[in-house]
Amino acid sequence: MKKVTFSSGQTIFKAGDAADGLYIVGSGRIGVFFPSNSTHNEPDIVLEKTQILGEMGVIDTASRMATARAIEDCTLVFVSRSEFDKKLEDTDPVVRGVLAILSSRLRDVQRRR
Amino acid sequence: MKKVTFSSGQTIFKAGDAADGLYIVGSGRIGVFFPSNSTHNEPDIVLEKTQILGEMGVIDTASRMATARAIEDCTLVFVSRSEFDKKLEDTDPVVRGVLAILSSRLRDVQRRR
Repeated sequence: MKKVTFSSGQTIFKAGDAADGLYIVGSGRIGVFFPSNSTHNEPDIVLEKTQILGEMGVIDTASRMATARAIEDCTLVFVSRSEFDKKLEDTDPVVRGVLAILSSRLRDVQRRR
Repeated sequence: MKKVTFSSGQTIFKAGDAADGLYIVGSGRIGVFFPSNSTHNEPDIVLEKTQILGEMGVIDTASRMATARAIEDCTLVFVSRSEFDKKLEDTDPVVRGVLAILSSRLRDVQRRR
C-alpha cells in the first residue's frame, strides 16, 4: 500500500489502461467518467474519503473500464493486486468464498453486455 | 455455523423462501433450479463439496431466488447472516470494502432485470 497524491484535474487512470490494483480515497474528490460520457464535463460518479475506486483491478486482469480524474487535489492509497491477494489469504474462507462467487457473477454479467 | 443433513430428494430451500444465511456443501451433491426451469427434472447448476449456495442470503434480505434440492444424501454447513456479519467484522477493511461494492453492484444488476 502506498500513498499517492494527484492535483485537481490530473488523471488517475484512463479507460483501457492496464489495471493492477485499487485506490482508496484519503482526501479530496475523484470524478469517474464512463466511456459513454463523451464530453467528460460532469463525472458519472463522484468518490470521496474512504470510498474505493478501480476495485475490479484486484478481481481480474481486465483493463480499466472507466476514467478517473481528481476534481480536487487529493490523496489516495494504492493497494496492488498482490497486496490484496495477501489480505485475502488472511481472510476467513467463507468470506473469501462469497467474494469469489460475487466476482465471478459480476464478470459473467459484464461479459454478456 | 451448524451442520445440517438432507436426504436425496429433500428440498433445502425454495425460491421465495425467506433467506437468513448461506450453506457450504460438506458432502453430496445439490441441484439448483432457477424459476425459469419449469420441470425441475434437470438442475441448472450442480454444487459439490466446498461450494457455497444461498450466498445472497448473507448479502441482502431478499428472499431466495432459486430452489435448492439434495440430489444425493448430503451434509451442509449453515452460516447465518449474523455469523457472517461477525466474520466480516474481523475482515480487513479493504477486503470488506470490495465485498460491499461488488454486492451493491450485483443488487443493482438484479434490480434492473
